[in-house]
Amino acid sequence: MIAQPFDDFSRLCVHTITTRPWSIEEAAANYAAAGLGGITVWRESLDGRAPAEVGRRIRAEGLEVVSLVRGGFFPAADGNGRQAAIEENKRVIDEAEALGAPLVVLVGGAVPGQPLEASRAQIRDGLEAVLPHAEAAGVRLGIEPLHPVYADSRSAINTLEQANDLAEAFGSPHFGVVVDVYHLWWDPHLEAEIARCGQGGHLFAFHICDWKSPTEHILLDRGLMGEGCIPLRQIRGWVEDTGFDGFVEVEIFSERYWKQDQHAFLRQIQDAYLEHS
Amino acid sequence: MIAQPFDDFSRLCVHTITTRPWSIEEAAANYAAAGLGGITVWRESLDGRAPAEVGRRIRAEGLEVVSLVRGGFFPAADGNGRQAAIEENKRVIDEAEALGAPLVVLVGGAVPGQPLEASRAQIRDGLEAVLPHAEAAGVRLGIEPLHPVYADSRSAINTLEQANDLAEAFGSPHFGVVVDVYHLWWDPHLEAEIARCGQGGHLFAFHICDWKSPTEHILLDRGLMGEGCIPLRQIRGWVEDTGFDGFVEVEIFSERYWKQDQHAFLRQIQDAYLEHS
Repeated sequence: MIAQPFDDFSRLCVHTITTRPWSIEEAAANYAAAGLGGITVWRESLDGRAPAEVGRRIRAEGLEVVSLVRGGFFPAADGNGRQAAIEENKRVIDEAEALGAPLVVLVGGAVPGQPLEASRAQIRDGLEAVLPHAEAAGVRLGIEPLHPVYADSRSAINTLEQANDLAEAFGSPHFGVVVDVYHLWWDPHLEAEIARCGQGGHLFAFHICDWKSPTEHILLDRGLMGEGCIPLRQIRGWVEDTGFDGFVEVEIFSERYWKQDQHAFLRQIQDAYLEHS
Repeated sequence: MIAQPFDDFSRLCVHTITTRPWSIEEAAANYAAAGLGGITVWRESLDGRAPAEVGRRIRAEGLEVVSLVRGGFFPAADGNGRQAAIEENKRVIDEAEALGAPLVVLVGGAVPGQPLEASRAQIRDGLEAVLPHAEAAGVRLGIEPLHPVYADSRSAINTLEQANDLAEAFGSPHFGVVVDVYHLWWDPHLEAEIARCGQGGHLFAFHICDWKSPTEHILLDRGLMGEGCIPLRQIRGWVEDTGFDGFVEVEIFSERYWKQDQHAFLRQIQDAYLEHS
């Protein structure tokens, strides 16, 4: 693993959703004051603001915009729905370009009751339709496989192997993969698939948090690093063994943490980042 | 798929946990009266009764004892815990023999925070330690891979591929695999791994229910067949394409259904079995 001095937060990035009670202006100012290197912007935190202006403000604070979250969700019950998803993804790419985000994080999507094979085909078709738009904008797309617990309604892409297959099939420097430990930690092929992802030049981003045991709510009870059972250092080691030296992004959805003082929470994130990642 | 007349429940088996409010005597009498062919006994429903006597009573009702659920849970934080698990599994095998159950369903086990690789090694060691006991008793062991959402605390064996690997490594006619659609429906390799399981002679049992979308509780909100998003007929087709002609076992944990009239629920199960499986 890359050596990490005890007070070096230059590779630490936090997702705006992690500190959801803060506006994006508060998040940018507070992350910068804490010495963080990057910020990943969730679309909901743009909330009507001009992306270009938000991007300028973030950079003026001294932070790097790491990515815009999230596009994708290509499957739909009918062709109109799928076309609307493609148009929406082009808007997300335009927003990322204006914001100055080099990467859009994509979630595949799924329609409850629609066969997963159908959703997977619709995801491939959707990606194919938007990739030229991303290439023209100079924005990269990163597909994030989601935990199989979300296969019913959020993503039919549930393993790193599937994401790697997609990345290799597209073979574009603008298309790659987002590795999130929450979704992938259980996979017996994780080490091999991370190596494969890195070797192919497809490892675009690395997201961390922890899996609490027990987990109270399958969507909104993610843990802080060290609070759960994910072997974070081991997985980070596999990621960095591929040569990855990008940001380590903290993405935590937690009703519990959102209720707490966000300054104290940000300090906890920094401590946990140093101690457990 | 094997043809299934509209009133043929000879291959339908229900797990006693599915109708948890009923005692095992009530379950056996009511399943038999409804024309079911089989019953799978959960250990909790034995509750101090002599297994041999329960087995006689079930057979006197005209039902077949399909399996005893469940053993396994081999990983533990220390050697004493692992040895205790091995002894407990030998007792489960003895109970199955007395009950006249030809199969014990095993869940691998996991210790929160212990690396999954360590739990997997402990599962292999535990299986190796108890398999001779099962062979001597003439009882088969079937490992049931659990959904990755249970990897933290219930099982480090989360895919059919892992279960098949174990079955092939042991190479015993007394060791095989239990396919449960709830745990495996999301897997992009499911069709191929079911075929592999069948070809190896390792497909010992087939469990059904449905995955509700949304799911309210990750353990106790399983759906009745047809209520969710699992392509049950497709998966049953893959299972039967291997030559499997054993019981189709309904295993539903549901606080919602347990609160309802169990006679009405059993009729719903029979209707759903005919209509959706």
